[in-house]
Amino acid sequence: MPPIALLTDFGTRDPYVGIVKGVIAGIAPRTPVIDLCHDLPPFAVQGASWALRSAAPFFPAGTVFVAIVDPGVGGDRRILLARTVRHLFLAPDNGLLGFLRDARFRAVTNRRLFLAPVSHTFHGRDVFAPVAARLARGMAPARVGPRVLSIVRLQEKPGRVAWIDRFGNLVTNLEPGPRAIRIRGRRVPVVKTYASSTPGALVAVVGSAGTLEISVVQGSAARRLRAKIGDPVR
Amino acid sequence: MPPIALLTDFGTRDPYVGIVKGVIAGIAPRTPVIDLCHDLPPFAVQGASWALRSAAPFFPAGTVFVAIVDPGVGGDRRILLARTVRHLFLAPDNGLLGFLRDARFRAVTNRRLFLAPVSHTFHGRDVFAPVAARLARGMAPARVGPRVLSIVRLQEKPGRVAWIDRFGNLVTNLEPGPRAIRIRGRRVPVVKTYASSTPGALVAVVGSAGTLEISVVQGSAARRLRAKIGDPVR
Amino acid sequence: MPPIALLTDFGTRDPYVGIVKGVIAGIAPRTPVIDLCHDLPPFAVQGASWALRSAAPFFPAGTVFVAIVDPGVGGDRRILLARTVRHLFLAPDNGLLGFLRDARFRAVTNRRLFLAPVSHTFHGRDVFAPVAARLARGMAPARVGPRVLSIVRLQEKPGRVAWIDRFGNLVTNLEPGPRAIRIRGRRVPVVKTYASSTPGALVAVVGSAGTLEISVVQGSAARRLRAKIGDPVR
Repeated sequence: MPPIALLTDFGTRDPYVGIVKGVIAGIAPRTPVIDLCHDLPPFAVQGASWALRSAAPFFPAGTVFVAIVDPGVGGDRRILLARTVRHLFLAPDNGLLGFLRDARFRAVTNRRLFLAPVSHTFHGRDVFAPVAARLARGMAPARVGPRVLSIVRLQEKPGRVAWIDRFGNLVTNLEPGPRAIRIRGRRVPVVKTYASSTPGALVAVVGSAGTLEISVVQGSAARRLRAKIGDPVR
Repeated sequence: MPPIALLTDFGTRDPYVGIVKGVIAGIAPRTPVIDLCHDLPPFAVQGASWALRSAAPFFPAGTVFVAIVDPGVGGDRRILLARTVRHLFLAPDNGLLGFLRDARFRAVTNRRLFLAPVSHTFHGRDVFAPVAARLARGMAPARVGPRVLSIVRLQEKPGRVAWIDRFGNLVTNLEPGPRAIRIRGRRVPVVKTYASSTPGALVAVVGSAGTLEISVVQGSAARRLRAKIGDPVR
Repeated sequence: MPPIALLTDFGTRDPYVGIVKGVIAGIAPRTPVIDLCHDLPPFAVQGASWALRSAAPFFPAGTVFVAIVDPGVGGDRRILLARTVRHLFLAPDNGLLGFLRDARFRAVTNRRLFLAPVSHTFHGRDVFAPVAARLARGMAPARVGPRVLSIVRLQEKPGRVAWIDRFGNLVTNLEPGPRAIRIRGRRVPVVKTYASSTPGALVAVVGSAGTLEISVVQGSAARRLRAKIGDPVR
């Protein structure tokens, strides 16, 4: 049975993620639910998009990804279901799924699949959870609602810091190739592995997402360079 | 197989929650365990009670809720098992289960169900986990111990901030109805949805728990109003 | 089906733990994965070792523990598989498994078990996850690689603070017995349970790991004493 993978900005301080899982357990009790991450900065659509994009290739075929970073909850933004060759994705139509180039999209509009009444503030519980659970149990994607031809896509800027991880590594969207990269006036040499440098050295490596990543060995590049998401690199 | 839902103040920095799950896995290996929340402020019995109360209706019949916010661990406070029409609840008798009006209560006293020896500091591992796992596998509630007619109930104050979530939303215990509410000298209009207001606006909506909730659109009401749990609202 | 228990220093801010679980779900879809902890201070090998050692006895036979605190990732440090009478352990050979006195060790070298290509920065995803998933499904331990007779063991200092938990309790490695212990010039009486002391009292109890633990009742001993991991106690 393929899993549901959950990505939200709900945090782990509140019972919201647990409630989403409670709804799923009531409809699809044998579907495993995997937490992708819940501590995204609130409303950080681009970061969520990056996280989903780097994680998806490592999940089994049939996985239903549910990504809820949704500043427009309760308004008239659509909820999308995307279907690729391997996976299904549920997310608000706010750019989060813009990285999917070969997907077919539907608008999630079939209210018979939702909890009733649908609240204005917690679509994770009332819409995303019951729809995801039914899809994980094998419901045909066509049941969620009509085909959609155009979705919101965010402009992708080349040469940027795309993510800053807990270790303070700066994940860029630069493909491997160059021998050095520049950020905030500093030249950072590209090395093969952290272990070949001394602690404290500022280096770039090919990161786990396949792009160049700027690190301080056993330290924090974010703190050293005072860098933030969106900073230009070249 | 119904899940066990876990709510503790153990945090996620320490291996305590994982150890509780290890004990459950040894007794009820096929029972899913769902994290409700673990980052409650230490000893925050009233917050835990609110979280449990708002989450429970969304969990499937048969769910065993385990709520461990237990400043009296190792003392002579009782551990309760509550049984409602749909659910079972295990928690210390410290007010946490006071919101259950139509439940039958038992004291958990049958030491043959516990790990041996029972430590003085970690009843989550030694008492709650093995009892919950056996209940999830179908053990009769009567086996935990004798009926109890009176439990600790905390005084409920109307018109208070009951919870402050990660987004800084102030969840009150006020039922919907009024057009505006007052908090810390400010008048806050009740609107239908966040999306109908501009970013930065201070508004109240009907929150996901069904009560009025004070928010700053795309911001933090807690920071704006310097509010804390227990503050009066009207 | 025995679980996989995961202990990392990946944190919960990033999708790294979720990606590890995605790889496991693809290979061993019915194996439950239990989070032991992910918020260890980065590179804290000794803390990770303590957490693993106190948690393992409470997990079912056959559990595969995966412990990834790995400052040497991408270098030439080995990855070990340890087999005890009850459990399997996967971890870097950096002292983390040094507490296992009656285990047999193998070096994990069989690249046919890994994802391809193996990245230089994320062995959790590319090496640990696929090997753990295959072991959980019953693969013979001998398939991972050759026997190893000597591993890295850290020097254990008696009379130290071994862990500081979220509540600010100082877990020591002192066995129970003495009536009082000394730390930072203060004498701390050993009592039977927190509940026998008044809030604010500085006391020591036998903690859940079976060693003496210094606590402030309903407060933080770490803050009161300005203590840190490694501080001497006697």
